[in-house]
Amino acid sequence: MPDIMSRPLIRERGVEGARQLEASVSDPSTPVVGILGTGDFSRSLARRLMASGYQVVVGSRTPKRFVALFPEEIEVTTQLEAVTQADLVFVAVYPEHHSTLVELKPALAGKILVDVSNSICISKGPSNAELLADYFPESSVVKGFNTISAWTLQMGPRDGGRQVFLCSNSQKAKNTVKSLCHRMGFIPVDMGLLSSSLEIENMPLYLFPSWRTPVLVTFSLFIFFYLYNFLRDVLQPLVTEKKSVFYKMPIEVVNVTLPSVALVMLSLVYLPGLFAAFLQLRSGTKYNRFPNWLDRWLTMRKQLGLCSFLCSVLHAVYSLCLPLRKSARFKLINMAYKQVKIGIEDSWVDEEVWRMELYLSVGIMALGLLSLLAVTSLPSVANTINWREFSFIQSSLGYCALFMATTHTLLYGWNRAFDPKQYRLYMPPTFVLVLIPPFVVLLGRLALCLPCVAERLRKIRRGWERSRNVCFTLPSEGYCNGLEDISNV
Amino acid sequence: MPDIMSRPLIRERGVEGARQLEASVSDPSTPVVGILGTGDFSRSLARRLMASGYQVVVGSRTPKRFVALFPEEIEVTTQLEAVTQADLVFVAVYPEHHSTLVELKPALAGKILVDVSNSICISKGPSNAELLADYFPESSVVKGFNTISAWTLQMGPRDGGRQVFLCSNSQKAKNTVKSLCHRMGFIPVDMGLLSSSLEIENMPLYLFPSWRTPVLVTFSLFIFFYLYNFLRDVLQPLVTEKKSVFYKMPIEVVNVTLPSVALVMLSLVYLPGLFAAFLQLRSGTKYNRFPNWLDRWLTMRKQLGLCSFLCSVLHAVYSLCLPLRKSARFKLINMAYKQVKIGIEDSWVDEEVWRMELYLSVGIMALGLLSLLAVTSLPSVANTINWREFSFIQSSLGYCALFMATTHTLLYGWNRAFDPKQYRLYMPPTFVLVLIPPFVVLLGRLALCLPCVAERLRKIRRGWERSRNVCFTLPSEGYCNGLEDISNV
Amino acid sequence: MPDIMSRPLIRERGVEGARQLEASVSDPSTPVVGILGTGDFSRSLARRLMASGYQVVVGSRTPKRFVALFPEEIEVTTQLEAVTQADLVFVAVYPEHHSTLVELKPALAGKILVDVSNSICISKGPSNAELLADYFPESSVVKGFNTISAWTLQMGPRDGGRQVFLCSNSQKAKNTVKSLCHRMGFIPVDMGLLSSSLEIENMPLYLFPSWRTPVLVTFSLFIFFYLYNFLRDVLQPLVTEKKSVFYKMPIEVVNVTLPSVALVMLSLVYLPGLFAAFLQLRSGTKYNRFPNWLDRWLTMRKQLGLCSFLCSVLHAVYSLCLPLRKSARFKLINMAYKQVKIGIEDSWVDEEVWRMELYLSVGIMALGLLSLLAVTSLPSVANTINWREFSFIQSSLGYCALFMATTHTLLYGWNRAFDPKQYRLYMPPTFVLVLIPPFVVLLGRLALCLPCVAERLRKIRRGWERSRNVCFTLPSEGYCNGLEDISNV
Repeated sequence: MPDIMSRPLIRERGVEGARQLEASVSDPSTPVVGILGTGDFSRSLARRLMASGYQVVVGSRTPKRFVALFPEEIEVTTQLEAVTQADLVFVAVYPEHHSTLVELKPALAGKILVDVSNSICISKGPSNAELLADYFPESSVVKGFNTISAWTLQMGPRDGGRQVFLCSNSQKAKNTVKSLCHRMGFIPVDMGLLSSSLEIENMPLYLFPSWRTPVLVTFSLFIFFYLYNFLRDVLQPLVTEKKSVFYKMPIEVVNVTLPSVALVMLSLVYLPGLFAAFLQLRSGTKYNRFPNWLDRWLTMRKQLGLCSFLCSVLHAVYSLCLPLRKSARFKLINMAYKQVKIGIEDSWVDEEVWRMELYLSVGIMALGLLSLLAVTSLPSVANTINWREFSFIQSSLGYCALFMATTHTLLYGWNRAFDPKQYRLYMPPTFVLVLIPPFVVLLGRLALCLPCVAERLRKIRRGWERSRNVCFTLPSEGYCNGLEDISNV
Repeated sequence: MPDIMSRPLIRERGVEGARQLEASVSDPSTPVVGILGTGDFSRSLARRLMASGYQVVVGSRTPKRFVALFPEEIEVTTQLEAVTQADLVFVAVYPEHHSTLVELKPALAGKILVDVSNSICISKGPSNAELLADYFPESSVVKGFNTISAWTLQMGPRDGGRQVFLCSNSQKAKNTVKSLCHRMGFIPVDMGLLSSSLEIENMPLYLFPSWRTPVLVTFSLFIFFYLYNFLRDVLQPLVTEKKSVFYKMPIEVVNVTLPSVALVMLSLVYLPGLFAAFLQLRSGTKYNRFPNWLDRWLTMRKQLGLCSFLCSVLHAVYSLCLPLRKSARFKLINMAYKQVKIGIEDSWVDEEVWRMELYLSVGIMALGLLSLLAVTSLPSVANTINWREFSFIQSSLGYCALFMATTHTLLYGWNRAFDPKQYRLYMPPTFVLVLIPPFVVLLGRLALCLPCVAERLRKIRRGWERSRNVCFTLPSEGYCNGLEDISNV
Repeated sequence: MPDIMSRPLIRERGVEGARQLEASVSDPSTPVVGILGTGDFSRSLARRLMASGYQVVVGSRTPKRFVALFPEEIEVTTQLEAVTQADLVFVAVYPEHHSTLVELKPALAGKILVDVSNSICISKGPSNAELLADYFPESSVVKGFNTISAWTLQMGPRDGGRQVFLCSNSQKAKNTVKSLCHRMGFIPVDMGLLSSSLEIENMPLYLFPSWRTPVLVTFSLFIFFYLYNFLRDVLQPLVTEKKSVFYKMPIEVVNVTLPSVALVMLSLVYLPGLFAAFLQLRSGTKYNRFPNWLDRWLTMRKQLGLCSFLCSVLHAVYSLCLPLRKSARFKLINMAYKQVKIGIEDSWVDEEVWRMELYLSVGIMALGLLSLLAVTSLPSVANTINWREFSFIQSSLGYCALFMATTHTLLYGWNRAFDPKQYRLYMPPTFVLVLIPPFVVLLGRLALCLPCVAERLRKIRRGWERSRNVCFTLPSEGYCNGLEDISNV
């Protein structure tokens, strides 16, 4: 349901709007909120405050110029008039222009200033909020709302989890802003004192921080495997047989690279869980901190999985377009010509047929399972399933998908691993290389299924510690609601 | 996690349920809410109110008949008894039956009536709420909850942004209903006086208002390009060479039409942003309102993009099924026959092979990028990324996708634009027509990247105005949190 | 925007963190919350409470050991010290260790205990919360938060609809915990007295309860149709013609099975709505309860539809990879050989070409429509559309998709239903079997469109009852906001 504020109707309130305001104003308890600034953010903020039942007054250096941009119920006046009427003022001007507001210092004494500004780049120096607090020592400065865009204010917090990060040196000012958040439909998160404002100001400037390493890994693996396959499939025939097969570069070489990247990355999703389990088994407790690299690896499993899924889907599309190409058609017709010339009536080879039928069918099933995993990664779907269901999909179905993808690769390889001609320049076929990580993961997981090992691990995860007691039932604290932590295999 | 109210367990509370009610009733501060009406909405509303801690009493003309439909804790009695007990009453009966409640006027005096009714079609006359207020002048009528379906009440506000639009002439009544909203987990939006009730009643009757123009544009472009291709590829061979190729109509003609529509619509997504930028550069300020048509075009960019994505995906599926068809197989076998008869051993044409390998590969990459754009348009995903990340994907990756799609079309065309035989009936090949909008967009975007132009535009967007000052650093108000407005290129 | 608590910065607060705490502590109104237990859940809960403005003190048997695991602002001390300071205590230890807390009974008298424990398996006996209440008769035990995972606490209620199910015998304790929920950004749902705690404890242990029957139906239909097709396409040629075509099992037999399952299941989505409509027409009222089996069938329509969609997509992928297989290539080359030997220059058969072009095109369009239905089933997308729009997509577009899928199957069958050779072992071709359910559904829907029938049904759904009155306009209660219930056809 689009927020009604986005409809053109709202711009044509006219006289009726004034009557609406009267009804609100006549209620003296309606708090007055001031906004300094007249840009998009101010306009959206003013509308949202008005829809939440506040009386809004906007202050501008040239009020007459901007009156037309605001709805009729909102008073647009001089900056001094606005801050005099209001108890809480949003400072929605560029940080480089904060100094121009100095003349309002007397009028702002004892009032609450909300700094909504952002910087252009990640900063290490004093934050805009701290500088503003230096300008207005007699006002309580609260940092907040800088992570909310004008668009979100306009459409409303459709995702009710719209968190607003606040910090201030004054608890009272923070509480006032918190109740204002609640009325507008946002959820305030208290970040502490004004010293946290730098952290808050740097937040909207991050560009997918949790995706950088997974994307880097994907690209590195892609480049490595592309060069490997290029060496084996294009350069080597050129050097040894003088065959020029550069036409393979756009599609065929890419189509051997993508599944390699996908399978290796899928193994990288399940590997850290195994490391974590083995570390816990070796130290006999779950209370030791994991090494930093393992911690970071565990947090990026979802991104690794989604990159792997994207590569799998692209691999499927590239494979499906193989018969579409002119090169495939030329090859087919040439083979027909050859067969006619040789005089073979039936060129059917049972083994080749079975190999392809099997590995295609298993590959499609693996892709189907991976799609289920990808769909349950969507935020809205992940929020509708409980932890046991999530674990079933990501863990059980996930290992199923890894097993199927490995079988797909084994069937594709068939017996070529034992054919010496495949080892060009002493380089093994790509699929042999690529099968190593998933084999390690699947064997490790099998090891964890052995009864004694599984039982020991279960006890450790329920809080038992080898060093503290011989007796298995001695109590120890641990999280007790039975929901395993994210390092669960 | 499905709301427990949907489980069968809830229907079998029995004696224990009564004990639960006692515990609530013995707390005299539990407000009593009445509901007039016994349909699905009443049942779901009653359950949700009960789960939020209210005492509920339902009024019906024939209470004995409907007692079985409600849980045991909810009292089902006569209408008069219900409104006497309650302080706030939901009027959940059909609007055409509001008049039958007139006999309850004395009992409802001074109480709050919430009108949850909807109309059948978009109305211009007095709203149901206003008519109800005429029937009960001594009660405070609040319009609300009509946009919430029985299903949502039952499942709970899974998306916390479940907004409930309220309006009333009485601020006190509105506040009471607002706190009731909060307790049930909804977010109330104040729409003003009862005169807004018509707007609220028309809300759930809109049928994708923001999608109408984009879908219309898509269908118009589809019909235009289908006729154009039909003329060129089916009618013209019939007229000039007497070749009947009507079999091309279901798939081949469609498969040239869909990518044309997709590419033109993708250009239409980025064109308004360029117009907006040029308008701002020409007027030297960002404070002038855009023309209405440009405003509307800017708001429908997401819908245009998603229609374009749907056409691209269908184009991909149609292309992938080309080798599946009997016509393709017959053609292949006939070509093999011809080649055998002529005696050509190798019919390989390097240029044709390279052309197809390249444009297929580039096309798949463009589709991959477009999928990323489509996924980040999903509400739940869009809510997890900040504005800088959103702008990176929709703007940077978006232009990348447009560039790749244009390259895909250029490679597909290859050198056929210079082949006079392609200009049948003086009509240029479709791909030549289709390349015009993206070229305009890409060249315009390149122009905006020139250092002087980019610098001027950046200053304008930070609030600088050419008319007001020669000096580049003079302060002016503007939105300051650094998040660009939605007209950002 | 990832919650800042997930950033490594948070772990390095140091001295500044202490200053933050001072600012909070100096405000005496900050409530003190205690947590017994030091596992992942305790840590995440402590962080979230701190971010919401509470003062947190954690109690452990070996405080020195766990101090390093918590941020500096949180005091980690002995269990006795923690419960003495706090007014509300979260009992985050394993249920089997609740008995060890008995020594704290005096210190916990009169305080609120929140039991967040979960069980390992669905239980019928007394719940953990009831057992805890037996240990601490002088404290108020509230069951809650057991459905919230440590991960959700850490990332924040991104989906604002994060419901927390509470129950307790003490209304006052429940209210305190409810306001704590609100401050942390969750939505409390009151489940009544402590006797509901068993229900709450069993909640996170359900494994997709609403998906079991649909998935069972899908697998059963798949096995049935696979055996049927295996008998007809593999065994029968082996028996009658001694042709071994087992290579068809992985892909070709699967590719006739999947669309059969998909089409039958799509019919099963729309069938219950027709039954419901006919039942209402027959009894002349909408107030009679549906039979249990029909009620259950109506609630699983979405899951049936999504299973059907998954089968359709897999069918599409299997079909698109048919020309990729070696068997297809061998067959093609053998046919070319045959054609050369016989000497046919053009093997074009118009009817076969048209049949394939048509049914492929219609099939792709059906798949496109089904994708739209699937996308609007995503929770976040479903929440942005109102009921009229949802009904348009799921009902109107849905029947369109069913019609197209049926046409696709009819075109695929063409005239083979009338060819006696297709009836092997007296078994009709699969597509004939599969066309029965959709025909029933489409004819039933057509019957409901007849003017007299449609008018009668509309009246019944607006509340008219045949038994109660002859007059068509007599009032009766019914839900009145015009949003049809979920049994709407």
